[in-house]
Amino acid sequence: MKAITLASKQQSKLLLTEVQEISLKKGEVRVSIKAAALNHRDEWCRQGLYPNIKDGVVLGSDGAGIVTELGEGVDQDWFKKEVIINPALHWGEDQKVQSASFEILGMPRNGTLAESVVVPADRLFDKPGHLTWEEAAALPLSGLTAFRALTYQGNIEPGENLLVTGFGGGVAQYAVQFGLALGAKVSTSSSSPEKLERAKVLGVSYVFNYLNNNWISESLKQVNGFDLIVDGAVGNTLNQLIQVAKPGGKIVFYGATLGNPSKLEARKIFWNQLKIMGSTMGSDTDFKAMVSLVCEKKIHPIIDQVFKFDEAEKAFDRMRDGQQMGKIVLVP
Amino acid sequence: MKAITLASKQQSKLLLTEVQEISLKKGEVRVSIKAAALNHRDEWCRQGLYPNIKDGVVLGSDGAGIVTELGEGVDQDWFKKEVIINPALHWGEDQKVQSASFEILGMPRNGTLAESVVVPADRLFDKPGHLTWEEAAALPLSGLTAFRALTYQGNIEPGENLLVTGFGGGVAQYAVQFGLALGAKVSTSSSSPEKLERAKVLGVSYVFNYLNNNWISESLKQVNGFDLIVDGAVGNTLNQLIQVAKPGGKIVFYGATLGNPSKLEARKIFWNQLKIMGSTMGSDTDFKAMVSLVCEKKIHPIIDQVFKFDEAEKAFDRMRDGQQMGKIVLVP
Repeated sequence: MKAITLASKQQSKLLLTEVQEISLKKGEVRVSIKAAALNHRDEWCRQGLYPNIKDGVVLGSDGAGIVTELGEGVDQDWFKKEVIINPALHWGEDQKVQSASFEILGMPRNGTLAESVVVPADRLFDKPGHLTWEEAAALPLSGLTAFRALTYQGNIEPGENLLVTGFGGGVAQYAVQFGLALGAKVSTSSSSPEKLERAKVLGVSYVFNYLNNNWISESLKQVNGFDLIVDGAVGNTLNQLIQVAKPGGKIVFYGATLGNPSKLEARKIFWNQLKIMGSTMGSDTDFKAMVSLVCEKKIHPIIDQVFKFDEAEKAFDRMRDGQQMGKIVLVP
Repeated sequence: MKAITLASKQQSKLLLTEVQEISLKKGEVRVSIKAAALNHRDEWCRQGLYPNIKDGVVLGSDGAGIVTELGEGVDQDWFKKEVIINPALHWGEDQKVQSASFEILGMPRNGTLAESVVVPADRLFDKPGHLTWEEAAALPLSGLTAFRALTYQGNIEPGENLLVTGFGGGVAQYAVQFGLALGAKVSTSSSSPEKLERAKVLGVSYVFNYLNNNWISESLKQVNGFDLIVDGAVGNTLNQLIQVAKPGGKIVFYGATLGNPSKLEARKIFWNQLKIMGSTMGSDTDFKAMVSLVCEKKIHPIIDQVFKFDEAEKAFDRMRDGQQMGKIVLVP
């Protein structure tokens, strides 16, 4: 089968190549991929930013497709089913945190950027009926991350003020969409006026361009403090977020694309009884609840652009450069 | 009446002086002070570290005594009662965070380091019967702070591993005592071998001297990660605490005697799903529950030393220098 693999000697670090189909172990299924989607994780794999990366691994965490082969012990009902795949493997039993054996589909285990992928059957969920293949493929990793940050960690309540930073990124979009679906008053920020216009169409209350130095005072005037802030950047903007958090509020971050902050306003945190919480991916419980919300509220993922597998380099470059507005999808 | 007031022109910045007794407003009572206790806050007032400090204010947040006069509308039952005083004024209705009008007894409102203090009657609680006057006076502010950090914020569960840093400080001692009473497996740290010996007598599982560079690896070997860490220092030790926190664990800090950290390990926080939470004082609900626990478990505050009012300078100096092991008490 054709697959997009890591190839550090290539200029693009990627190779669309023929890969041997592996045979199924007990409890596994083969899913014929109809569409796959990119995450920052894929680009970071390409850049070699994880330990123990090896050439030849098939990248990709997000995928949707049709079950074409069942391993021993798998319920026959799955055969020919249209599915999405939960890319979080071996989370374990603790809702608070993933187990030590937790891993994410698509490195070290071969991922979804291929004509087919082999996964444990317990990672399968029915493809939501209202979604196209491209939309379905775009949902799992970012949707899961956003959902857990908002709900289990952020405990968002209807009517609360939610700020989602960096609209345009996959998790941020889902955080905005899910926040709206859960009845929060949602605001979002970006450096791109176009992305902020797009956010308004979704029903966001206020948008802030964080390149504008006034955004903190403006947001305090308009919202008077956010109950929950969902962020994936951290860096020194964390201290700005601390300023716009409502006393008693929460800041949940699911990534740190701007790296570590070089200071932290400790006094403001304890006096205002703030909570700064880290979140990553989500449990099986989170995934199930996320899919339920998407189905119940008929939420449609935002698709940036759809690429063919042989345009993988262009797709990855677009992710690297942060040009996308929505999920970048690849189809075999 | 005699009272210890702020006096910036004095070398000691303190003055034991005659102060006019104020008349009672509606809902207020006068409490004749049997014992009062010091907190860091009093020392910081002496050092002028709060805004709007004025000479002449009577310091002191912690006190216990006998109700000698009732204002209009106060229940007659309080007359002649032995009481402790909740020093948290105007917390408000929100359990998450204090209101904007929140203040702490003893600046700007005249405090407990006096022969008598005037407080709203709703700040009174029956003095726990098993406590001496000195012990009762030592309980309110630090006990409240420790209790909220452990329970409402830290949500400590029986059997969980709790680390309380800086044993010797008032809040830290109560956090250790309350943690033990609530069934946690408690460890504590200090730079003083004597204080750590004292902690062992209380029933602490492990003690760590944080001047020993191995304390992190040692604690990881012995406890394999703390579910909850209660800290009042922050500074760069925060990153050490992040290392010894169990994945999914919480760090609650109620002060920052070491100031702001100069960096923060963001990746470790989100990958390990840690929560870093600020806490200060506590609500009326917290105070009530704290006093109940103290009564139910017959907890005795640890008293460092008892001074007379005319030894106030010595008492404050002892607080400033961190020499104390337990609460510093002053009696009129």
